[in-house]
Amino acid sequence: MSVTICEVGPRDGLQNLPRLFSVQERAHLIAELAAAGLRQIEAVSMVNPARVPQMADAEAVLEALPPLPAVQLSALVLNRRGAERALATGVRELRFAVVASDTFCRRNQNMGSDDSLAAFAAVAPMVGQAGRQLTGVIATAYGCPFEGEIAPARIAQMAEALRAAGADRIVLADTIGVAAPRDIARVHDACRDALDGLAWGVHLHNTRNTGYANLMTALERGAGIIDASIGGLGGCPFAPRATGNIATEDVHYLLHREGIDTGLDHDRLALLVEWLAERVPDKITGQLARAGWFGA
Amino acid sequence: MSVTICEVGPRDGLQNLPRLFSVQERAHLIAELAAAGLRQIEAVSMVNPARVPQMADAEAVLEALPPLPAVQLSALVLNRRGAERALATGVRELRFAVVASDTFCRRNQNMGSDDSLAAFAAVAPMVGQAGRQLTGVIATAYGCPFEGEIAPARIAQMAEALRAAGADRIVLADTIGVAAPRDIARVHDACRDALDGLAWGVHLHNTRNTGYANLMTALERGAGIIDASIGGLGGCPFAPRATGNIATEDVHYLLHREGIDTGLDHDRLALLVEWLAERVPDKITGQLARAGWFGA
Repeated sequence: MSVTICEVGPRDGLQNLPRLFSVQERAHLIAELAAAGLRQIEAVSMVNPARVPQMADAEAVLEALPPLPAVQLSALVLNRRGAERALATGVRELRFAVVASDTFCRRNQNMGSDDSLAAFAAVAPMVGQAGRQLTGVIATAYGCPFEGEIAPARIAQMAEALRAAGADRIVLADTIGVAAPRDIARVHDACRDALDGLAWGVHLHNTRNTGYANLMTALERGAGIIDASIGGLGGCPFAPRATGNIATEDVHYLLHREGIDTGLDHDRLALLVEWLAERVPDKITGQLARAGWFGA
Repeated sequence: MSVTICEVGPRDGLQNLPRLFSVQERAHLIAELAAAGLRQIEAVSMVNPARVPQMADAEAVLEALPPLPAVQLSALVLNRRGAERALATGVRELRFAVVASDTFCRRNQNMGSDDSLAAFAAVAPMVGQAGRQLTGVIATAYGCPFEGEIAPARIAQMAEALRAAGADRIVLADTIGVAAPRDIARVHDACRDALDGLAWGVHLHNTRNTGYANLMTALERGAGIIDASIGGLGGCPFAPRATGNIATEDVHYLLHREGIDTGLDHDRLALLVEWLAERVPDKITGQLARAGWFGA
C-alpha cells in the first residue's frame, strides 16, 4: 500500500501556538522534517499576518531553506491574493482551503462557502499555467463548531466542484476533530464519484481521540495522502478547542506496525519532537517520543 | 451491537498515581461511575499494599459503597491469596490476571507465566462454587516491555487453558500500549477457537495513540467487553511508561458516533473527570471533557 504523509507541522502545527517561532526556527523545522524522510511538507500559509502572526514572513521562511530537491513543499492559501503570493515563490504545490460550513468560512476567510469554491475555480488556471500542483482542501468536512453536522452530500458537491475546476488532489479535513470512523466512511461514500481516479486524502485532528481510528478507516477507503503534524501540534485560530493534529511520529509507528512503509526515520522524528518540546513543552500531543518505539 | 464498557479507573486508573486516593474518595468515584451508567466496574485489586499502596484497603472501599444492585463489581486478583480475599467480599466477579511474558509475570506477580495459569486453574473451582463470575485477563498479550513481541500462538494456548479451567470471560490486555489494529486481528485470529462462544474483550492502553483504532478492530472482531478508564487514567507500576488506558468518556463518544449505545451519561462522566482533574490535573489523557461533546 502506498501512502504519503503530508507534514503540516510548520503550518497547522505552529499557527495556533502562543509562542512565535522565528523565520530561522521555521526553516530549521522544515529542513529537519525533510531530513527525517518527509517528502510532502506544508511549509507556510499565505495569510494575513495581522490575523495569524505565527504565519507571517512565509516568503522569508522559504528563502531561508536549504535546497530540498526531494521534497514537494506546499503553501496553504485561502484566496486569490494568497495564491498569487504562493506562485511568486518556488513551492511546487498550492493547497487551497475551501470550507463546507458557511459560518466557519466567513469567520476563517471572510467569504461564504460558495465564494470559497468560486475563488478556487478562479485561481486554478493560474496554478496550472504556472506548472504547480493544486490541492483542494475541504475544511469542516465532518462538522463545524458553529453549524454542527455537515451533510455528506454537500461535501460531495464541493469535491465535484473542485474536481471540475481542476484540482489535482482533494483532502477532506476534520478541522475540529469531531469525526468517528463511520463519519469518514459516510463522507467517502458520498464522495466516491467525485474522488474516483483522483488522488485524495484526509486531514485529521485528534481533538476527541478519534483521529487514529479515522486514519485506519481512511486507509481502508483508499486515502493516499495523510496530513499529520510533528509532535501532534495543531489547531485552528478560528476553531475554539480544536487541538492537535494526528502526530507524524505516531502515524509512523501505527503504519509501520500495519506493514506500511512511509520511509520515515523514527529517531530523527523523536529528536525533532524533543526540539519542539523545549520550546512548547505543554503542546506536544504525540506520544511516541515519550513512550518509545516498540518492536522491529 | 451489544458492548459493555468495563470501567477500570478505580483500579488501573488509580494504581499508578503519585497521589493516594482515600477510601472515601475511591468509594465516591465508584458510586459516581455507577451513577453515570457504568454497569461493570473493576473496583479494587487484592494485591500486596506494600507493593501497590494505592490499592490498599480494598475491603474498606467495598464496605464504604452504597448499595449498587445494577452494577457488577469486580476485583482484580493475581494469585490464590488475592482470590480468597475477593471471595470474602461481595464482589460478583473476579478478574484474574495471567501474564503471557515470563519476565513480566515474575516482576509483576513473582511467578512464571505457566505458574500464573496454574494458579488460575487452582482458584477457578473456588470461584465457581462461590457463585461468582471468573474472568481471565491475559496481560502483555500484544507485547512486553522486557521480552518484546509475544507469539500469538502463546496467547491462544493461554486462552485455551483459561477456558479449560472454567473462565467465564477472557480479556486480552495490551498492558503497555504497543498494539496496532493488525496485532489485534492477529491475536484474535490465533485465539478464534479458544474464544469461540465465550464472552471476550480487550483491555487497551493508549500509550502510543493506537488504543482507539485498536478498539475499532476489536469491535469488528466481536469483542463484547471493552475495558476503559475514566479520564484515561492508567498505568502499571511494573510497566515503565505504560500510560493511560483508553478513556471511558472518549470511548463513549466514539461508540455513540458509531451508533453503539452504551447507556452512559456524558455530562456525569465529564463532571467526574473534572473531579479527578482537581486531584491529578496532569494525568488526564481523555479529551472529551476538555474538547466537549459534538452532535446529537
